[in-house]
Order: sequence, then structure tokens, then C-alpha cells
Amino acid sequence: MDAFRRRVGGFAFGGDYNPEQWDRSVWQEDMRLMREAGVNTVSLGVFAWASLEPEPGRYEFGWLDEIMDLLHDNGIGVNLATPTAAPPVWLTHLHPEVFPIMADGQPFGFGNRLHYDPSSPIYREYAARITTKLAERYSFHPALAMWHISNEYGPTAYNEAASVNFRRWLQRRYGTLEALNDAWSTRFWGQLYTGWEQIEVPNIPRTWMNPARRLDFKRFTSDALLECFIAERDIVRSFRDDIPVMTNFMRFYRNADYWRWAPEEDAVALDIYPNPAEPDSHVSAAFNYDLFRSLKGGRPWLLMEQAASAVSQWKLNVVKEPGRMRLGSLQAVSRAADSVMFFQWRASRGGHERFHSAMLPHSGPDSRTFREVADLGRELRLLAPVAGTTQRAQVAILFDWDGWWGLEEVAGLPRNDFSYTDTVMRHYTPLWERHLPVDVVSAASPLDGYQVLVVPNAYLIGDEGVARIEAFARDGGTVVMSFFSGVVDDCNRVRPGGYPGAFRRLIGAKIDEYWPARPDEVFAVEFADGRRATATWWRDDLRLETGKALATYADGLLAGRAAVVENHYGAGRVIYVATLLEQEALDAVVADAVARAGVRSRFEGVPAHVECSVREDDAHEYVFLLNHSARESASVPLDGGTDLLTGVPVSGQVVLGPLGAAVVQAPRA
Amino acid sequence: MDAFRRRVGGFAFGGDYNPEQWDRSVWQEDMRLMREAGVNTVSLGVFAWASLEPEPGRYEFGWLDEIMDLLHDNGIGVNLATPTAAPPVWLTHLHPEVFPIMADGQPFGFGNRLHYDPSSPIYREYAARITTKLAERYSFHPALAMWHISNEYGPTAYNEAASVNFRRWLQRRYGTLEALNDAWSTRFWGQLYTGWEQIEVPNIPRTWMNPARRLDFKRFTSDALLECFIAERDIVRSFRDDIPVMTNFMRFYRNADYWRWAPEEDAVALDIYPNPAEPDSHVSAAFNYDLFRSLKGGRPWLLMEQAASAVSQWKLNVVKEPGRMRLGSLQAVSRAADSVMFFQWRASRGGHERFHSAMLPHSGPDSRTFREVADLGRELRLLAPVAGTTQRAQVAILFDWDGWWGLEEVAGLPRNDFSYTDTVMRHYTPLWERHLPVDVVSAASPLDGYQVLVVPNAYLIGDEGVARIEAFARDGGTVVMSFFSGVVDDCNRVRPGGYPGAFRRLIGAKIDEYWPARPDEVFAVEFADGRRATATWWRDDLRLETGKALATYADGLLAGRAAVVENHYGAGRVIYVATLLEQEALDAVVADAVARAGVRSRFEGVPAHVECSVREDDAHEYVFLLNHSARESASVPLDGGTDLLTGVPVSGQVVLGPLGAAVVQAPRA
Amino acid sequence: MDAFRRRVGGFAFGGDYNPEQWDRSVWQEDMRLMREAGVNTVSLGVFAWASLEPEPGRYEFGWLDEIMDLLHDNGIGVNLATPTAAPPVWLTHLHPEVFPIMADGQPFGFGNRLHYDPSSPIYREYAARITTKLAERYSFHPALAMWHISNEYGPTAYNEAASVNFRRWLQRRYGTLEALNDAWSTRFWGQLYTGWEQIEVPNIPRTWMNPARRLDFKRFTSDALLECFIAERDIVRSFRDDIPVMTNFMRFYRNADYWRWAPEEDAVALDIYPNPAEPDSHVSAAFNYDLFRSLKGGRPWLLMEQAASAVSQWKLNVVKEPGRMRLGSLQAVSRAADSVMFFQWRASRGGHERFHSAMLPHSGPDSRTFREVADLGRELRLLAPVAGTTQRAQVAILFDWDGWWGLEEVAGLPRNDFSYTDTVMRHYTPLWERHLPVDVVSAASPLDGYQVLVVPNAYLIGDEGVARIEAFARDGGTVVMSFFSGVVDDCNRVRPGGYPGAFRRLIGAKIDEYWPARPDEVFAVEFADGRRATATWWRDDLRLETGKALATYADGLLAGRAAVVENHYGAGRVIYVATLLEQEALDAVVADAVARAGVRSRFEGVPAHVECSVREDDAHEYVFLLNHSARESASVPLDGGTDLLTGVPVSGQVVLGPLGAAVVQAPRA
Repeated sequence: MDAFRRRVGGFAFGGDYNPEQWDRSVWQEDMRLMREAGVNTVSLGVFAWASLEPEPGRYEFGWLDEIMDLLHDNGIGVNLATPTAAPPVWLTHLHPEVFPIMADGQPFGFGNRLHYDPSSPIYREYAARITTKLAERYSFHPALAMWHISNEYGPTAYNEAASVNFRRWLQRRYGTLEALNDAWSTRFWGQLYTGWEQIEVPNIPRTWMNPARRLDFKRFTSDALLECFIAERDIVRSFRDDIPVMTNFMRFYRNADYWRWAPEEDAVALDIYPNPAEPDSHVSAAFNYDLFRSLKGGRPWLLMEQAASAVSQWKLNVVKEPGRMRLGSLQAVSRAADSVMFFQWRASRGGHERFHSAMLPHSGPDSRTFREVADLGRELRLLAPVAGTTQRAQVAILFDWDGWWGLEEVAGLPRNDFSYTDTVMRHYTPLWERHLPVDVVSAASPLDGYQVLVVPNAYLIGDEGVARIEAFARDGGTVVMSFFSGVVDDCNRVRPGGYPGAFRRLIGAKIDEYWPARPDEVFAVEFADGRRATATWWRDDLRLETGKALATYADGLLAGRAAVVENHYGAGRVIYVATLLEQEALDAVVADAVARAGVRSRFEGVPAHVECSVREDDAHEYVFLLNHSARESASVPLDGGTDLLTGVPVSGQVVLGPLGAAVVQAPRA
Repeated sequence: MDAFRRRVGGFAFGGDYNPEQWDRSVWQEDMRLMREAGVNTVSLGVFAWASLEPEPGRYEFGWLDEIMDLLHDNGIGVNLATPTAAPPVWLTHLHPEVFPIMADGQPFGFGNRLHYDPSSPIYREYAARITTKLAERYSFHPALAMWHISNEYGPTAYNEAASVNFRRWLQRRYGTLEALNDAWSTRFWGQLYTGWEQIEVPNIPRTWMNPARRLDFKRFTSDALLECFIAERDIVRSFRDDIPVMTNFMRFYRNADYWRWAPEEDAVALDIYPNPAEPDSHVSAAFNYDLFRSLKGGRPWLLMEQAASAVSQWKLNVVKEPGRMRLGSLQAVSRAADSVMFFQWRASRGGHERFHSAMLPHSGPDSRTFREVADLGRELRLLAPVAGTTQRAQVAILFDWDGWWGLEEVAGLPRNDFSYTDTVMRHYTPLWERHLPVDVVSAASPLDGYQVLVVPNAYLIGDEGVARIEAFARDGGTVVMSFFSGVVDDCNRVRPGGYPGAFRRLIGAKIDEYWPARPDEVFAVEFADGRRATATWWRDDLRLETGKALATYADGLLAGRAAVVENHYGAGRVIYVATLLEQEALDAVVADAVARAGVRSRFEGVPAHVECSVREDDAHEYVFLLNHSARESASVPLDGGTDLLTGVPVSGQVVLGPLGAAVVQAPRA
Repeated sequence: MDAFRRRVGGFAFGGDYNPEQWDRSVWQEDMRLMREAGVNTVSLGVFAWASLEPEPGRYEFGWLDEIMDLLHDNGIGVNLATPTAAPPVWLTHLHPEVFPIMADGQPFGFGNRLHYDPSSPIYREYAARITTKLAERYSFHPALAMWHISNEYGPTAYNEAASVNFRRWLQRRYGTLEALNDAWSTRFWGQLYTGWEQIEVPNIPRTWMNPARRLDFKRFTSDALLECFIAERDIVRSFRDDIPVMTNFMRFYRNADYWRWAPEEDAVALDIYPNPAEPDSHVSAAFNYDLFRSLKGGRPWLLMEQAASAVSQWKLNVVKEPGRMRLGSLQAVSRAADSVMFFQWRASRGGHERFHSAMLPHSGPDSRTFREVADLGRELRLLAPVAGTTQRAQVAILFDWDGWWGLEEVAGLPRNDFSYTDTVMRHYTPLWERHLPVDVVSAASPLDGYQVLVVPNAYLIGDEGVARIEAFARDGGTVVMSFFSGVVDDCNRVRPGGYPGAFRRLIGAKIDEYWPARPDEVFAVEFADGRRATATWWRDDLRLETGKALATYADGLLAGRAAVVENHYGAGRVIYVATLLEQEALDAVVADAVARAGVRSRFEGVPAHVECSVREDDAHEYVFLLNHSARESASVPLDGGTDLLTGVPVSGQVVLGPLGAAVVQAPRA
């Protein structure tokens, strides 16, 4: 990736480019306008399989040769895609069994993308062939800057081939049927398997479903997709191993466990379409950026796709108002993105996404959108020194696909409207609002170096993860944990010994029973210092053991019982929140835990709507100040350094207008 | 049709008659009560296939002979149906492939009606055979007054036979695969077709779908149904060509393009079930009546089915309160219906529609419903001179199936909750409330003779339609156009050159970007004369070229930009409304445009709830005054002529009680 | 059942026991804790098929032998289940056609329970074999106390085997196709059948469906399930006929007509999970308890499954708050339950229902739940004399599956949002609140001995049922009937002669037309004595014949027409309510009718939240007083007898704290 960074001279800037949709006359205009906009990188060929191989085994590379040369002549590097996300119609016509069977039992037919069962040997064979052809031809083309393997891996398939592959996966995982029957608790409802061939993908996910089978199917699906990625990656690497290889991930995407994927890539890349109609979409964007930085242990990541303005896939697609696209782009950069890329360069005339905005919209270069794009290109060049630097954090938050699947993929919980990402965001938001840098960790991540670990709703967590959190606390760390954590093991079985099986010692309390609340119930909670707050949605009926109550219920049948518990565990401190506190009260609990752990933000006192982040390398730090308010200005105390966007030295404070931004470079102390 | 009109002596009055459901003893009572009610026409045999051909090739015509004779003896003409809307169970048992495959991939099984794939050669063969048999036997029966081909053509089928037929249709339309790939923009998402056999009906309409493929499938489905109609029509005509042939259409029915169907029929006929629970259902009924009159260029049309009181197909089926059925029937007549027919004559005891009201209800002749039916029969005889006359209009409104499909059949628009018919009704209502006669036109209709053309949301419109509207304006016409018009061509591709591609010159403005509004956004709009109004839902970000602002936004990020544009184009005037104005403000814009075009209603000042229409022939005019209010009386200034319903001469004014009606005959000036 | 009652020494107490889910070490703890809790009965082996027959024809009975012995050694009787509700995976793997095809055309796959088509000959064969094996081995085991045939019979299947069986069922019912065509009104929409093989299950229940076909399919499905029950019952009886045989039914379960099932069982048993989040769930529980007592003509019934606290199958599963489980259990006993059983004994670690509460919860014996269970066990032993006694009533309420299916299984009614059970509860509640004992009757039940019969919304009722109600009234009974009764016959055909066909003479009025109300309509109703009330949802347009108006509409188009009718019929009195009165007004109508019929509660004046019931035998009566309020105490006047729960004699009154209960034994007068 360093070589790639040098090649683009800082940030990669550009977008998906689909020249096969246009006449050659348009290509020339594209080159001119790309230069005008400062584009240095394009993703090419993402959906070009049918154009490259219009019939089985007959290839048409001429147009691609031509455009690769043209791009190179114009100084634009190519992130060349294997086109395997969009199998040609001839392939599925010859082999309809490649179409993924959906949850409703019907094939997902031709007309969209991702119309393949990742377990299909036929799909894999054809995908390997076109990948090989591309690698043969372009591995040493001077325009080649990166490999973009397929696109937004995602389909869940219930095909017969998936069942075959699922059985293999289970055999590798469990070895024997006895082990599988035990892991899946198949004695319940008499689901005992007595032959591997009896096992099928949970082909119709009726609401009532063996939870362990469903969980393993989610793991398997992620792994089956990953096998596809690895197969193509290995092909391109077999030709040349000094070109970075990636695929593009998605925001809060439940079908692939990115913790397992990230190590297989040279860089992680994110497609993100925050909804401009949602007032807090930039906060969940920030979390995803932190996640992506963390996926590869703090290394810069790639913003691979975003929209220049509106998208078209929702019921209502509002535009990004003036200044919002720029601010959002800088926000990604502030959290260690090393690229700003768009889907797509030029708006299509036809096809499903013809109203998805592009860098070059239907209204042409004389348009607000193109002007904002070109301005951003200019600004990114000013920020070139920032590329390659990263961010450090003392606070970590647990985010884990197993836990997500546990809560949302199967019914049968005390309540069945959990939103894992909502819960995570409720715990991340107070940190974000206080300008505290946060790393995201999985249950398998090392925790040394952190002072505080936030554990939101870790319902399903394996023994190793439990041990790692216990060790973190024992060694002096602060743990903030929310209710319904540590409940089931990694086979989705309730842990014995009383709730919360995994964390009873850690939190110093036993839970007699979970008490989900009725929709209209509101409880009063009183803190030890007399502050009162309200709570809803959930209560633990909790018996303190070594823990003590930081807050208790002030009314209801559980009046007097603990609502927030503090437990000293080894050298550490554990805060356990046993109910859904109103956000302000939860903020205070989190803030207090962080403060008592000795973690402080250098931007304390800056209003929440001004996002403050720091990237740094050995020599410099880069302070990003981003005002998300379209109405209010703000001034941030800061002394020294130079705003790279304006070239103006900073002394005393930085003043930001509505939607304003500054990136202050300063030597490290 | 003139012969038919003479035969019935004015208006056709009656309903669907299903004697095969009843014992012969009931038939005699039917005849007596039909005579009592003034019935002169019945639709016979609509669902009688299984009764006529109980086994393949074995026919039972005896009962039909008998009832045809009986009806004739009682002076009742027969609109004889080919029974092909309801294939017998033996047919689908022998040939299950006839069942239409639904969007969800499952066959639409036996139990309803319309259980056939219109592309099925088997269905077509059996349908032709029973049609031939009927025509052989009854073409010269003296009771035969009209042919009723099948019933409410409508099924959409995703069968293999449909794919075969779809390919043929596409080959006719496009000739080459190259042309199809271009028209469908298949380079997007790599959907290039390299063999005709690869093309299938869009068998599972996932939300993301090639928009051109979907559009063509809708066109194809309409045409496949029309092929069925034409085949049966040609059979009956081959026996005798002086009997009118029709089929019954439906209100606001999206699956068949009636503009393409109407020329193939001798008369257009409408089944309409305005919901009595909806306060404005009579206004949308009026629009449909105007549409049906316009479908055959102003010729009278047939009201083929309505309910005597409640229907049974909705979740909630309220009755037509006393007087409403009469008023609604006269409303159809006032807009050039030449018949008032019901589904059905006698309420069924069993089957799905047993609670659908009938002319003769379950409670028998001693009932409110039967009394109102018989009264209506009497009144229609008084109105006999009106039959055959028509209505003239100076205002036209565009209503087009292509445009409808463009907005509602595919996702991926800036917002995906367009309702084409709602938008049309928003523009029709101010005309209706001002008693202005309106013709409905398609994009292919001639426009000469109109002063004003209203173009609501013509999102998808072909080059010919665009040219026709431009010519209309150039030649001095007034065009009122609403936002998101002229956007895509007839292949559903965005028109190049900046929005609104087709109409940029016409409206004298370029649109930089479409700005759908958030649900809670309300904008202030200020008109040039200082009036203010609110707008919601949508804004164009618009740059005036030759146009000037009639109104601008008074707040928000687009403050000062045009919300309503006036452009002088050739000798004409174009008003473009770039946002969703509150109804009152839109009414004013429409009314002002009409007034400035010199079009006035002779009923100006009459309250909106009194619907005023005029039918006329060379010698007379017939003024219909219909008071839709159940609470308020009204008086309408009118001098001369005679109220045909009462025989009372009119002088000075006509006074209408609640739900009252008058039909004033006067010599033409 | 008397022998069974003697065996358990009063009440059966225990739950489902699934030892196959646990190690043998746990079994010993189970025995100890069961004794501690007072368990005397367990349901064993309900889902054990795969554990008993892990491969076709290979049996593993060792573990079951062991546990049967162990239970017997601990004095615990076994309700031994045939495990046929959960076919092993090997069975469906060998014979996938056993999977039931669902309404959407897809098979209900493996992973839940009840994954079988009851018409499948293969399923029936395998089920018979395992049943035979079990009966061979355990019929004379000393632990065997009862046979539990399968579990919660319920699946609806649209398989080919179901069609075959459906045809056989129809042939038995109708004999000839002519009769079937007539019964099904197949002339409507041309659905005439000309060969039995043409008839299929209504495989895709589209909204528009032949109502008689759908009705018969519901009847058939119930009967097909019953055939399965009878086959297994006959097998176990063939070995030994002195062990009671039952299966477990469900609360308000629409798929099986329990009136047809009950005579085939030795006792009826109920699984009931009142939702603690619904404030009135104990009232609908009371109705179900009365129904179950009535299903076998007043004989005590078995509470077979309930939850110790929360369930897990809903979106939100709230706990039973302290004291609620005990009170609910005593409520069942008060209405003639002779057992209190739970699902299940010990909470599972894995599988779908791992969060369904159990007698022994995840938190172990040191838990609120286990303590409440053990306390209940103790109390039930104190109540032993009550077992075997029953309850008597002078008021009956009609509840009938045919009527239910008529209203809710097919569309096409004047309105299509009827809830039969809601309507029944609206009529039952005033009786319950006034402490009036109620029996539930079917249209075929004898009615002698009752003073009052309440007939809620008997839309579909056969001629025999009509005659029985007429005779009841003629002989002096009081009938309270609500609107839309007597409309269709048992073939779902509208009865001729004007609405309400069946009951026109009984109510002394003819209905011209049904007038469903718009959602926002509220009508004023005035009673003869001047009281006013409101009504919504529905009005009959009614013409009095022999009846007179007890109340009339005071506004609207039907002002002055009757809203409540009184008719003297023979020696009896009929009250007909022609609209949806507000609940308070309906309560008064019902209460007045009951009072005028001379029926009085001995608990008049006791607040509604104190449920008062009496069980009795020849020698004693047992007065149950149950305070459902968690906030208010209550005192009930009562003199004499002894509270069995406390051993304290009663004089003058019984004082009940919040959620308090008393069971007062006294000699019969």
C-alpha cells in the first residue's frame, strides 16, 4: 500500500468508471473532466464480464486495452476489477443452478447483480477463468494500481451446492456428528442427525429455527464468500504479488464477518452511503470509519464508494446539501481513510441506478455537484501529507459478528427486537460527542494499550473472548458492559450457572430472570449521588454478589434493586448497566467511567457538533476540525500549526463557519 | 352502435345475468322482475364455459338456447359473452401449464377467475374453439345484441410460454439484439444479451430491475392480452360483422394500455366500482368517464358494470346510501355513457361474490335497492333522447400508460412513492370543480381544437409525444406541466442535455438536480403578486433560461429560486410547476392558466358540489345538473328548456335538493 | 380418569420432562428437586422419536427404561408421549414428501416441529410403528399413568397426498359430484367439477376463493389430523384399555374443531400461555377454561402446559410477576382443571425455546420461579379434595369452529376484519365480571337446563343448530344474539328469504341490507328508557316484523330504526343487537337479559377483579375467590366453611390481599 500511496501522491481520488456504457467520443471528454476534477484513480471493469467475455471462452479485450492505455496516458491509475459480481446472462442460461435460491425458495433471477451461489463449483470455475485471463493480460500494464476483487460480496444462497459445502464446513468444524449434535443441542425437539447427508442449509428460515444451526449457517455463508475472494486473490497474486488486492465492503453489513476477511486483504475498503435524511448518519459513519481503521490494526483504509449527492435505492433519496459531500469526505479522511472514491464517475443514462448521483451528473460539468467534486479534488491534494498517517485510541468498543448474529438472526429471545447496531451506537455516541478516539475490537482482538473497554450487549461470546475481557479487567482496565451480555456460548447455548453465565464474576452479580418491559413502561432510576433518570425496555432482576449498586430502581416491582452495578475485579473496575437508561444518563455513566480511568480528550469543551480527530505519524499530527452544523459557527482553541486547507497558521483558535472544516498540521510534541 | 342504440330505444339498462346459477323456476321470476325494472339488455354467459362445455368437446347449449329464447320473448337483448375468462377446471387439470405463474414464482391456481397465461397456445386454442361454437350457434339469434369478449382482461403471467412470446414481441420491436441491448442499456451491470433465447420474462420482480426490460414487459403483457381479444373478435366477426364487439375495461387499470385497445373495439365499456367510503370517489369516476369518452374520440361509451349498492372485494364495503346509486348512474350518463349496467342482476347465494350487491338483492324485490333500480330504469327511459349525443371540451389532460409504468413499475427514482393517478387527479380536480369539460389525451392523440393542455408528471414520454406538445405550444396553446416530466425516453433512459431533457426548451429552464423533500419539510412559496403558499414533497433545483419565475421559494436552501415558471414558447404559453404546491395554490395556477387561455365555463359560480355537464348533438343540448351533497340544496341559473326527469320547463333557475338531479333538454342555439 | 385422580392423590402436578437433553448426573438432581417441588406427574418423550429410533427400525429404549424406572422409584407417574409430533430427520430425508407444503407453495422444512402432512401414508405408517413399539414396551410399566398422543396437532398441508385424502373426504361427505357442485355453488365463476380427480386442496389461498371449498378444506384438515390421533389411540388401547388417552389442545386454536375431537379422548387437555403483557388475558383464559370443561360435558379437564414465567415465542415476552403464576394456576383449578402442568420441568440450554421459562429455570433452584413452583405444589396438595368436582351454569354461550371459519377463513364479506374470538369475548366479559358461571356450547350441544343462551355472531350455522336455538327459545329460554348471525348455511351459501335467513322469525325482523360503518363513524343509540349510548362498526338496516325496538338510532340515515330488538318467541324472549354497542351498553343489555331470565350470581356486588367460582360435588362446594388486582385488596361476604389454603374457618367475610386467593370448602346446602 505504501507504493500505491506514493503512486497517487497522497490520496486516491476518483470513482467507479464504466466506459463500456458510453461511446468512445465520451471517453475523451471523460479524460478531460477527470483531469479537471483531479481524479487520479478509477475502479474499472466492475460489471464488465459480459463485455469482456460475450460468449463462453470468447474474449473482447480490445476496448479495455484501449481505455487502460488512455487512462495511463492521462495519468490515472486503475483499480482493476475482476467482474465476477455480475455473471453474464449466458452463464446462468447455461447453468441455472448458479442462481442463488433465496430464503423464500425461489431463485434470485437475472436482472440485478450478485446472482450467484458462492458455493457453486460452476460459478467458481468460470470466475477463476475470467480472473486468470484478466491477470494474464493486465498484471503488468502500467496503469494497473490495485486489484478490486469482485464487488460487495454478499449473497446468501440456499442451493443444493450450498448444502454440500455447508456439510464440508461442518465436518471441518466439528469432526463428528456427535460433536455437532451436542453443539446444536439437537436433542431438543428431536433434531438428532444420524448422517451428514441429512444436514441441509436452513433453507426456509421459518421463524422458529435451531439457533445453533442458523448461527453456523451465517458463519458458513461468510466463509463461502471468503473462499471465492481468496481464490481470485490467489490467481492475481500468482502473476504478480506487488499489486495491492482488496474487495469493497459495506457499512454495517451483517452477512460477512469482516474480522475474518480483513487479514486476507492488503487493505480494507468501504462503500458507504450515509442517508442525508437522517440527522445522525455522520455519527454512525464515524463508527464505521473507526471499525475500518481497526480491521487492519490501525492501518489507513480506503473509502471506495460514496455518492456525490443522492442515491436511488431507497424509497426517498434526498440530496447532499451544498457542502455536505465535502464535509463527509473529510470526515472519512480524518478517521484514517487514504482515499475518497465515488460510485460512479459519470451518471448512467439507463439501468437501475440511473438516478444515483455521480461525480459528473446528468446535468453535466456546469453543475453544483461537479463543482463540489472538483473543489474536493483540489483540497485533497493540499492534504497529501496526511495520507499514510493513522489515529490512536485509549478506548475500545467491542463489535463482533457472532454477537450480532446471536441477537438478530434467530428468534426465541426474551424480546426479539434487538438492534445490535443501535445498541453499539448508543454506547459509541457519548464517546464521539466528547471527541474521544475509539478503536473497535473483536472478541479476539488484543486489548493491551487500552484503558477502557466498552462491551455493548455481548449476548453471544466464546470462552476466549470472555477470558480476554476478564484478563483486561483483572489487569486494571475499566469495562463498561450493557445488559444481556455473556448469555450464550459460541454454540448459542445458554451458559450454565445462572445469568449472565460468562460474566457473573466480572460484574459481581447474579441475574435471577430477565424482565423485558412492556412498551409503555418507564422506570425511575436513582443514582447513588441522588441524580434520577428514567429507564425503559429492559430490566435485569439482579442479586448483587461482590458488586455494589451505583444506581437502583426507584419504583416498580424491582424497586431498590440495582440498575447499575460497579464491581472491582482484580485491579480493574467494571460498570454494568442492567437496564436501558435514557441516553443522557447512559452518556454520563460512560463519560464517568472513562474519566475515572484517566482518559481525557484534548478537545474537552468543544461542542459536540464539531467533530475533532487527530491523525499522526512519527513527525506530525494533523488535527481535523469538522463543523457538522449548517447553522452554527464554532471556534476551537488550538495553538500552533498550519491549516493545510487554507495555508494559514493557527494561533489561539480555529474559527469554523457552518459546515466549515480545518486540517491543522503541527509537529508532534 | 347506432343500430344497437335504436334496438334498446335509447339507453341500455340491465346487468350481468347468470341464470346457470339458478333453477328454471327462478328464471320466470327473473323475467317478470326484469320487466318491472325496465331491463332491456343483459350480459350473458360471462363465466359459463364449464356449463357450456362440461367436458372437452362435449357441449351443452340447451339451457342457453332456452334462456336466449326466453329473454327474446321478454324483449330483452343479449350482450353475449365468450366465456374465456374462466377456463373450466378440466382444462387446467389436463394442462396445468395454462395457469399463470405469478410474480412470486407460484402458479395462480384454480378458484378465482383469469387463471390463464394469455401467451399460452393451449389456452388460445381452447378459447378459439368455444368462441367458434358460440358464434356458430348464436350469431343470428334474434336476442343477440352485442358480443362481450371475455371479461376484464388482466392477468400478468411469468410462464415459459410468456417468455417465448415476449422474445417474439421483442424481435418484432427491436429487430436485432444490438438494438435491444442499446434500448435496454444492458452494458449497465453487465446484462448484455448475446442470444434471444437468453431473454426471459422478468420472472421475479426483485426491487432492483432493469427499468427498460420491465417497461417492455408491461407493454408486452398488454399486447399479449390484446392478441387474445383480437383472436376472439375476429372469430365472431367472421360469422357476422354487424353486431358490435366489445370487452369490459376497468377503472384506472394499469395492466392494459387502453389507448392501444380502444381502436380494436366497436365501443369501449367500463366496469367501475367507486368506493362509497371515499368522499371524492365521484371525481375520479368523472375522470374515468372522460377518459372512456375520449378513448374512442368522443363517441359514447358503455357503463358495463357497477354495483347497485356495496361490493364485497374490499376489507370494508360500505353501502351506497339512498340516492347515491341513481346519482352516480346519471353522472356516467352526463359524461356520455350510453348504458347503465350492473354486476349483476340477481345476488348469488354462493361463491366469492355472494355479498356483492345486485339489482335484485338477497332481500328480494321488496327492498330499497330494487326500488331504486326500478326507479332508475324508469328515469332512463325519460332520458332516451340523450343517448348517442356527446360532449365537447377545450381543455385536454394527458394520461398515458407508458408514463404510468415509468413512474410506478420500477424503483430507482429520486423517490419511489409516486402515484401517477393521484397526480393526475390533483390536476383534474380544479377543472372538475369549475365545471370545465375535459378531454383525456394520450401522447399520440391529435391536439388541435384544444386551448389548454395539462401535462401531469409526464416522466416517460417518447420523442413524438414531445414534438406534439411542443407544436401545440408553438401554435399558441397553453401548457400546464408539473415537475418530473420529460425525464426519460421511451426506453426509460435519462434524456441527455440536462433535466428535463425533453422539455428544457419548452419550460425555458434547466434543472440542476431533483430535490425530493423529507417527510416533515414544508416550504414557503411566494407568488409574483405577493400571495404565499406552502409546498412539500419535491423541489427542482432550477436555473431559468428563457423562462421567468411566477413564484419563488421564500425559505430553505433554494430560497429565491423559481418554484413556478412561465415561459413563452412560440405563440404559446407554458406554466411549469416545479414543486408540490398545496392543492388550493395549484388550483389557482390551473384556473389562471385556463382563464388566460380564454376558456370559460358557462357554469361559473355554481358550487363545486353541483356537477354540471352538457351532452349535445346537432339539434339539442342536454344540461346535466347533479348535486353530490347529501346536506345542501343548490340552485343553478338556467333559462329555457325542459327537465326531462320531471317534464317541467325551466325558467331562470333549477333548484336541486340534496342528491338532486336535473337533465334539461334545450334546442341548440 | 378416576383411577388417574386416585393415583396422583388429587391434582396432577408437574410438567414436560425431556431428560434426553441432559446427562445422567442431572437426572438425579431432577428427582431430588421434583420431590422438593411436589411433582407427581411428568409428560415424557414428547419429542424423543429421534432418540428412541435413531435410524429406521433401530430402537434405543435403554435410556427410557432407565428414566421410567427412576421416576417410578421417586413416586412420579408418567404421561407417556408418542413422539410423532417430531419426525426424525432421517424420515424426512428418506421421504421429503412428508414435509407439509405451506400456503405459499413451499415445503415447511426441517428445524421446527409438526413438519408432516397428516394425510401422508408414509408418515402415518412410521408413526404407527413407533407407537406400537412404545405401547409394546411400556403399556404395563408401573410408572405409566396416561398416554399423551403426539403434541399440539395442527399443521395445514397442501400436499398431493392431502389432495388425495381431501377427495376421499369429499366423496364420503357428498357422495356425488352433483351434490358437491351444488354445495359449493360451482356454477358461480364457472367452477363446475366434472371429475373427482379435478379437485385439489385450495393450494394457494389467494384472497378470492370459493368459500365452500375453503370451509370444507378447514373441516377436512381438522379431520385428517383427528385420523392421526385416532390411529395412535387405537394402537395404545389395543394393548391396554384402562390407561387414559389424551392429546394436548391449544387456546383459541382455529385449525382443529375440538368439538369433534373431544369425544375421542378420555380427557381434554389444554396448553395455554396467557400473555402477561395483556391486562385482560385472564378473562380470555377463563373462557378457554370454561370451554374445556364444557368440551366433555362438565367433566374436569387437564391443564397440560403453561409457563412458569415468560415464554419466548413472541416479539416481546414479559415475565409473570410475583404471585401471578400461582393465581393463574388456581384460576384454572377454580374452573375445573384437575391438573397443573408446565412446559417444561428444566429450562433447556439450547434449541429454539431456551428462553421459555421452566419450573426449574436457568438460575437454578435458588430462584423466585422455583420457589413459587414449590409453593404451588404444596398448596395443590391442600386442595386435593377439590379434584374431581365440577361446576354448574345456567348461562350458555355458543362457540363453534364452523362459525369461526365462516367469518375468518374467506374474504368477500360486507367487511373482512371480523374477529370471532373478540366478539365472543365481548359477550363473555359481562358474564365473567358479574361472577356468573357459563358453559360453552356448540351448535350441536343439548341446551336443556340453561336459562340463557348467548349467541355471538353466529354467521354460519347449520339447520340443526338453528332448530335447536329456536326450540330453546320456544320452550322459554332467553336468547341474546348479536348481528350478522344466521346468514349462511353450512355450505357457506346465503340463506334465502331475506337476512337473517335463519333467524328472521326468531328475532322478529327482516334486514334489508348490512351497513358496515366507516372507520370514523359513531352513531348515537337511544334506549326505550332514555339511556343513550354510542355504536360503531356495523348497523343492520332492519325492518321490524313481530319484534319491537329496545333501542333505536338517534342520528344518521337510519335514525329511528331499531338498534336493539326484543322479540317474544314461543315462551321465550330474544334480544337481538344489530350494531356494535360500546362495551358498557352491551354489558347492560346482557346483564339485563340474564336478570330478567331469573339468573343471579351469589357473588353479586363483589368487584369485578375478584373472580368467584364454585366447584362442587354431591357433598361439598368449593368457593374460589381470586383477586386479580395487584394493587387493591377486597373482602367478599361469605359465611361458613374453611379456607383450604390456610385451614382457617370463614365467618362473615373473606379478606383477600392484592393477588390473594382463598378456597373455601363447605358442605352443600
